[in-house]
Amino acid sequence: MKVAILMGSDSDFPVVEKCIDVLKDFGVSVEARVLSAHRTPHLAVEYAMSLEENGVDVIIGAAGKAAHLPGVIAGVSVLPVIGLPIKSSTMDGLDSLLSIVQMPSGIPVATVAINGAENAGLLAVQILSVKYPELRHKLHTYKKKMADQVLVKDASIQDRY
Amino acid sequence: MKVAILMGSDSDFPVVEKCIDVLKDFGVSVEARVLSAHRTPHLAVEYAMSLEENGVDVIIGAAGKAAHLPGVIAGVSVLPVIGLPIKSSTMDGLDSLLSIVQMPSGIPVATVAINGAENAGLLAVQILSVKYPELRHKLHTYKKKMADQVLVKDASIQDRY
Amino acid sequence: MKVAILMGSDSDFPVVEKCIDVLKDFGVSVEARVLSAHRTPHLAVEYAMSLEENGVDVIIGAAGKAAHLPGVIAGVSVLPVIGLPIKSSTMDGLDSLLSIVQMPSGIPVATVAINGAENAGLLAVQILSVKYPELRHKLHTYKKKMADQVLVKDASIQDRY
Amino acid sequence: MKVAILMGSDSDFPVVEKCIDVLKDFGVSVEARVLSAHRTPHLAVEYAMSLEENGVDVIIGAAGKAAHLPGVIAGVSVLPVIGLPIKSSTMDGLDSLLSIVQMPSGIPVATVAINGAENAGLLAVQILSVKYPELRHKLHTYKKKMADQVLVKDASIQDRY
Amino acid sequence: MKVAILMGSDSDFPVVEKCIDVLKDFGVSVEARVLSAHRTPHLAVEYAMSLEENGVDVIIGAAGKAAHLPGVIAGVSVLPVIGLPIKSSTMDGLDSLLSIVQMPSGIPVATVAINGAENAGLLAVQILSVKYPELRHKLHTYKKKMADQVLVKDASIQDRY
Amino acid sequence: MKVAILMGSDSDFPVVEKCIDVLKDFGVSVEARVLSAHRTPHLAVEYAMSLEENGVDVIIGAAGKAAHLPGVIAGVSVLPVIGLPIKSSTMDGLDSLLSIVQMPSGIPVATVAINGAENAGLLAVQILSVKYPELRHKLHTYKKKMADQVLVKDASIQDRY
Amino acid sequence: MKVAILMGSDSDFPVVEKCIDVLKDFGVSVEARVLSAHRTPHLAVEYAMSLEENGVDVIIGAAGKAAHLPGVIAGVSVLPVIGLPIKSSTMDGLDSLLSIVQMPSGIPVATVAINGAENAGLLAVQILSVKYPELRHKLHTYKKKMADQVLVKDASIQDRY
Amino acid sequence: MKVAILMGSDSDFPVVEKCIDVLKDFGVSVEARVLSAHRTPHLAVEYAMSLEENGVDVIIGAAGKAAHLPGVIAGVSVLPVIGLPIKSSTMDGLDSLLSIVQMPSGIPVATVAINGAENAGLLAVQILSVKYPELRHKLHTYKKKMADQVLVKDASIQDRY
Repeated sequence: MKVAILMGSDSDFPVVEKCIDVLKDFGVSVEARVLSAHRTPHLAVEYAMSLEENGVDVIIGAAGKAAHLPGVIAGVSVLPVIGLPIKSSTMDGLDSLLSIVQMPSGIPVATVAINGAENAGLLAVQILSVKYPELRHKLHTYKKKMADQVLVKDASIQDRY
Repeated sequence: MKVAILMGSDSDFPVVEKCIDVLKDFGVSVEARVLSAHRTPHLAVEYAMSLEENGVDVIIGAAGKAAHLPGVIAGVSVLPVIGLPIKSSTMDGLDSLLSIVQMPSGIPVATVAINGAENAGLLAVQILSVKYPELRHKLHTYKKKMADQVLVKDASIQDRY
Repeated sequence: MKVAILMGSDSDFPVVEKCIDVLKDFGVSVEARVLSAHRTPHLAVEYAMSLEENGVDVIIGAAGKAAHLPGVIAGVSVLPVIGLPIKSSTMDGLDSLLSIVQMPSGIPVATVAINGAENAGLLAVQILSVKYPELRHKLHTYKKKMADQVLVKDASIQDRY
Repeated sequence: MKVAILMGSDSDFPVVEKCIDVLKDFGVSVEARVLSAHRTPHLAVEYAMSLEENGVDVIIGAAGKAAHLPGVIAGVSVLPVIGLPIKSSTMDGLDSLLSIVQMPSGIPVATVAINGAENAGLLAVQILSVKYPELRHKLHTYKKKMADQVLVKDASIQDRY
Repeated sequence: MKVAILMGSDSDFPVVEKCIDVLKDFGVSVEARVLSAHRTPHLAVEYAMSLEENGVDVIIGAAGKAAHLPGVIAGVSVLPVIGLPIKSSTMDGLDSLLSIVQMPSGIPVATVAINGAENAGLLAVQILSVKYPELRHKLHTYKKKMADQVLVKDASIQDRY
Repeated sequence: MKVAILMGSDSDFPVVEKCIDVLKDFGVSVEARVLSAHRTPHLAVEYAMSLEENGVDVIIGAAGKAAHLPGVIAGVSVLPVIGLPIKSSTMDGLDSLLSIVQMPSGIPVATVAINGAENAGLLAVQILSVKYPELRHKLHTYKKKMADQVLVKDASIQDRY
Repeated sequence: MKVAILMGSDSDFPVVEKCIDVLKDFGVSVEARVLSAHRTPHLAVEYAMSLEENGVDVIIGAAGKAAHLPGVIAGVSVLPVIGLPIKSSTMDGLDSLLSIVQMPSGIPVATVAINGAENAGLLAVQILSVKYPELRHKLHTYKKKMADQVLVKDASIQDRY
Repeated sequence: MKVAILMGSDSDFPVVEKCIDVLKDFGVSVEARVLSAHRTPHLAVEYAMSLEENGVDVIIGAAGKAAHLPGVIAGVSVLPVIGLPIKSSTMDGLDSLLSIVQMPSGIPVATVAINGAENAGLLAVQILSVKYPELRHKLHTYKKKMADQVLVKDASIQDRY
């Protein structure tokens, strides 16, 4: 089980890194590439097209501003494509979000929150878990652990009030 | 292979219907329910929780305004949850979109465009295709057909200019 | 007279704290909990449902981004629910505000300003004052004190011009 | 138990009417007035100030565009004030919403959704129910009825799929 | 010739101060007050109503968030009212702008840019100049001076390129 | 006493007409011109520059979309300039509003609500009333008449509830 | 001199048509194609890449929603690319505008107004006029004609007031 | 081949400078001026009108807030005008963008991203390349260099994963 992550610029990496960490924690193989839909369009398309037969199950595309990368990938691959909108220096990420989520009929991109890198990784794991039952078990454990962390914080607040 | 569709209100049905049509065209079993995160919260949660062991692979949640349904489902299931924001009478769907996509870390919702019902269905098929190879073949055919439809329209425009 | 405050994450606490202070200043009992609509949905719902018979009069729900907590509480309780939108790292709180205020017909959430924690507390006191006349007296005193503070500042500006 | 409803213009009445209907259905006395914060400011303020000693428990203020009425009322009364933003011909109600909800510290307005007249009424009932237990019973019945209506719609959709 | 400046909070003063400076530079008498439409509504209204017969020609109201002060003043005075929207900690001043500019028919507020304090002062001078010809002369001088300042900067850039 | 009204396009006329009616009702002379800041820039500037010595007291500029006309007028005249943002076919008037109100320091435009033509007229009257006392009297009468109209509507609603 | 127009969907044609008319009026050769960045990505890219050596001088790309077409073209051609954002059924064209204009450094798209088809055509003519002096003459004539049309409308308004 | 750059204020220079650098790197002559559409309107217009006969091929106008400069230039010149929206202290550049891009029919401004100074320069080069073939060659080299820079970054990420 393998996830390919494309980011439009290496400036997206500090955000994207959390996505890679989540995937590795779940034992998913990751390929990460910096390939721009605008600066290296042929390479981006060629790479995206190669992923299906190279055994990649899910693609994650991260981009900011006029964030075309996830949509361009979705145009050339039938694999599920997750779009991760990156907040840039203007417009607070709204431009990235709308550029990624408002895809025309026929070419979906599964969009997560602005800078929601962990969720991009988790969504990939959930999609993989449709095929790989061992991941589903890990997801239940993860969910339980998250709940436990809330309980610790809850206890600490309850102690105060 | 089975997809469960929850909509928050039956007024969402005219939009959601296109999503059901796409899934049926791909030969995917569909369960469709009207269950509100706010008006029938226990039933919605109970139903969402039952889906994993009932063999459902993907859940689609459609809702408008303060559109909590997809997020509530994602809180109680580890299945991949697709969020379909419905445009309502004010705010042009921006409220629905932000309420669905801006999920906190740990609980992703795979969001598609405002009123993007076909894409919600197609994304579900793409996710299922990770496990069911026959769907991948159909997706390639679908993609080709979409391209062919564009070519027909392109020819008609080229004839004019 | 008792108010229960639920926050979706302990990162909301620095904002929520001002709300607790207001309530304590008015002599209102406060229960504060960290319970996420997404990470601990069952606990959040169970707790929210228990509040009516445990003598709580008003519930305050604080949350950011796709801020579902106040709406989820309002779905399972008939107590008045105050929603406090928390500003997060993107979208300047607009996502939180719309996710909380745009509730569907039948399930109101009494929404205050983005990060308006004092007002969430004061609104709870105003609601309690419908039943507890002693609070109404305190509210008049509070209003007078606020006015007096403005007068001091006004005098200081008048001295300059 | 009595609720006073002020609307800034009689053009708001078609929306506000639903709010009055909800209150009457719950057996709550209603006073409805057209009093503008800008065109009849003295009357609006005088009336708002009289409500507490006239036995009104909750005030609802409905207004559109630069919707100051609810905030102006909240400035002169310690009763809980519910703000109902009315959608006008431009800005899709966003101006009304922000003008009502973004109140400064010390003067809360309990804001409901844009054009959310039923919810303004229901919120008033929930607030009254803090004092009048018979309303709480009716609210449970109302909630159950809403759920039942969803179930009917759910059954009709389930029949189709 | 006299201008009265009301600000809703003394936190608005650092912005408002530039407005006072402009007025003094033009030799216009200034009264500055901190009077809140919400915290000291009666005083604000009483003061606003007294201005016409006290020989004030123009009123400037500065406020942030749900910025009702300029509109409230315009409701009780027929003097021209200039609205100065103050940027607050959320929503980048859009809430202040819409709350001030979107006034209903019959009650205009002459709105300037978000945090546009100099322009509020200049607009007051322009209005006064309708009556006081000496101000018109000063306005021409001011305009010429502004142009000259641009020319200096232009020369400095032209030197470089 | 004279007001000059410039509109950027004759398509703005149906909105602007209400402004002319208000001015005529107050007995103010009106010159109305269609002069575009972009299509007839020289004529617009030349005309705007001529207004001061032709005895015009106030200028109103109405424009939509990238609404530059009021700002361009304000650049070449020291008369008070009122900006009237016209709602066009996209963006609900937000583009017009921001293009008019967000003027740089030194060049104010007194902006009224989107499509707020009556208010543009009334504001002009208020400005003129600084010089012409007879207008102030009429403004008080107008304000009283507005209040009376509200009272009639109020009575009609009070009859029903 | 030749301009190629690509539209993402034939539903964009009623808007795009006005752009073609402008170009033909100026005697510019036009190629118009329906080629989607998402549905026919290879064809769109291949066609865009062929334009330079086929003697096309300027490319116009029209698209709505997540409007990637102009940016994708700009990624594979060094010809000037004009982006025409098409208003779709939600978001009033803001999504199209931001998706087209917010291009990353290195890959400009010359963006015109939402649905601004005539301007897309005129901008192409202005660009061509850098090379072809006869177009510059026609542009001056066009500008004069526009001004004359304003004068006719101005005369008609002046007749009334 | 010559490009004239006008900026509305010297505070825009730190952004605009990157645009000048790009043009110089391509060997294009640059004239840079600080000329405000509002503070020095006659000079700005006079200069803009002189550019065509002084052999300038393309004009770039940079401005913030109510950013009228590019539109005012486009009103008096038939040269292609590139608009560069500058982000100011409020509204995150949305006001600048809409004021520049939403031009009325007949007067296009070729708008680039908020603060997109490099792209304003590159777009000018692309436009010039329609006439000057040597620039087209340089643009291909530039595009290749950009791609190569991405490849270096891509290699560095691939090394890590």
